[in-house]
Amino acid sequence: MKNILITLIASALLSANAFAADPLPSWGDTAPKQNMIAFVEKGTKEGSADFIPPAERIATFDNDGTLWSEQPMYFQAFFIFDRIKALAPEHPEWKDKEPFASVLKGDVNAALAGGEKALIEMAMATHAGMTSEEFENIVSDWIATAKHPKTGKLFTEMVYQPMLELLAYLRANGFKTFIVSGGGIEFMRPWAEKVYGVPPEQVIGSSIKTKYEVRDGKPVIVRLPELNFIDDKEGKPIGIHQHIGRRPVMAFGNSDGDFQMLEWTTSGSGPRFGMIVHHNDAEREYAYDRESHIGKLAKGLDEGPKLGWSIVSMKDDWKTIFPE
Amino acid sequence: MKNILITLIASALLSANAFAADPLPSWGDTAPKQNMIAFVEKGTKEGSADFIPPAERIATFDNDGTLWSEQPMYFQAFFIFDRIKALAPEHPEWKDKEPFASVLKGDVNAALAGGEKALIEMAMATHAGMTSEEFENIVSDWIATAKHPKTGKLFTEMVYQPMLELLAYLRANGFKTFIVSGGGIEFMRPWAEKVYGVPPEQVIGSSIKTKYEVRDGKPVIVRLPELNFIDDKEGKPIGIHQHIGRRPVMAFGNSDGDFQMLEWTTSGSGPRFGMIVHHNDAEREYAYDRESHIGKLAKGLDEGPKLGWSIVSMKDDWKTIFPE
Repeated sequence: MKNILITLIASALLSANAFAADPLPSWGDTAPKQNMIAFVEKGTKEGSADFIPPAERIATFDNDGTLWSEQPMYFQAFFIFDRIKALAPEHPEWKDKEPFASVLKGDVNAALAGGEKALIEMAMATHAGMTSEEFENIVSDWIATAKHPKTGKLFTEMVYQPMLELLAYLRANGFKTFIVSGGGIEFMRPWAEKVYGVPPEQVIGSSIKTKYEVRDGKPVIVRLPELNFIDDKEGKPIGIHQHIGRRPVMAFGNSDGDFQMLEWTTSGSGPRFGMIVHHNDAEREYAYDRESHIGKLAKGLDEGPKLGWSIVSMKDDWKTIFPE
Repeated sequence: MKNILITLIASALLSANAFAADPLPSWGDTAPKQNMIAFVEKGTKEGSADFIPPAERIATFDNDGTLWSEQPMYFQAFFIFDRIKALAPEHPEWKDKEPFASVLKGDVNAALAGGEKALIEMAMATHAGMTSEEFENIVSDWIATAKHPKTGKLFTEMVYQPMLELLAYLRANGFKTFIVSGGGIEFMRPWAEKVYGVPPEQVIGSSIKTKYEVRDGKPVIVRLPELNFIDDKEGKPIGIHQHIGRRPVMAFGNSDGDFQMLEWTTSGSGPRFGMIVHHNDAEREYAYDRESHIGKLAKGLDEGPKLGWSIVSMKDDWKTIFPE
């Protein structure tokens, strides 16, 4: 009994010590991790030349491809397609109308052939026309059960374990962590707090317009089929400015859609940190960059290192990809 | 010496005790204060039927007339007029162009005769055309020195002491405090953290559009003379939905421009709290409500009590108005 107790205490001490020594166990001991830890340690040490006052510890994260996977298409596109199928009985006209007809036939490539215009048309048809609470319930129900076609995992199981550790590590050091995504703001908010520990008020994304009205004495916010804001490329610093109102000191992305967010973040005065996740692990996840239709990364690879950004090789710098 | 020490210790204990007993010393011991304290105590007591999980402790505050004064006109209008005077040398055409000509002649009433349209025209002429950082500096310089014509105080000295205590009390109980104002979001952010303890990311307001561009290798956010969002009346629940993404549990206002914010807040399920500050103290501040052009309050007085909102009489419920 005594030996068991000693073993238990010893292993508890060891694991506490291991945690204290390594808050990022899924990261290999390579440059990206070393850079981050050095940045955070200097930034939180009072009296350090690189000290960052707590109020200014703002870190922004892209979502698709940075916090969770984005292949073979943005996960929100799976949601859109599932909604089109669910709503088809109310829309007999969709049988003969593209891109809806292709979705209903199961022809994803044809449905996406219309590019961004087609995607926005499908988003409007499926994301508007209900109240904010109804939409939240629709998203919550979908995300709880829908699965990725290749891995068979829930989409929320395809978040990156190293990034979950990083979010927690930054928060433990007084950073406010924000999501700044091209994805729909109200598509992410219902689950971002549970999955990432990021509350709705720290989620920034693309949005449609809404209106406030009182229906039978009950106030509601109604979602309208009209674009409000596209939080991508030049839109990311604009979204940050609108929602946060100050420049982040750290920014994390994976595609050229994140270039301006990192550029805006790292060009401020004082200590700054930028990081690009490079998807080069076809075995454990996906490998894509310059030629990809989703998450294209070219400018970030060419310019990022010159601007002092860390480039993460998923293959070499991450010990684990998804949570166990 | 011993007696002095005992007196010092005793008075320290007494004041510590007084603080513990009364976190809101500038509020009279009347219904509004009693209602608030009861709400917060039940809301933060684990196991209470009215317990509010920490993540849902969101409290929203109007600014003009709720956190600081708004007479004889919105303080931002003083800023606009001062900016017009400062910019006049660059705009010789303003001498003959209304409403600018009236401002330059010092005729406030004539300048405001054009109503909201004239005010927006003047805001566009003075709030756009520079970078976000330049505008922040302009506001910071102005707010540090500009004084109210009647009281001779700095505008930031005309915040309400009871509301400063309330903001601190709510934050001490785990509430996130947000400003939700019809005023300009970038007009408030430069000083809201210092004056109210509310960081920029928790300030919501009206805004103009901006664009991101790289000037001589330096990224900037440029302010454009185009309205983006009016955060007033029905706009307040919309602004809350955009920025916070969940319904507040407490809301504080003073005019009918806040009606929808309080309606949206207090019609949610579970414990809810709404409060209207009624300006009825001509001696210590101002007295106005149903007939006022600024901060008109009629619907709130008629409907608020039926909806369970507390109405604060500044005259009877506040011991102090402004900080000493």
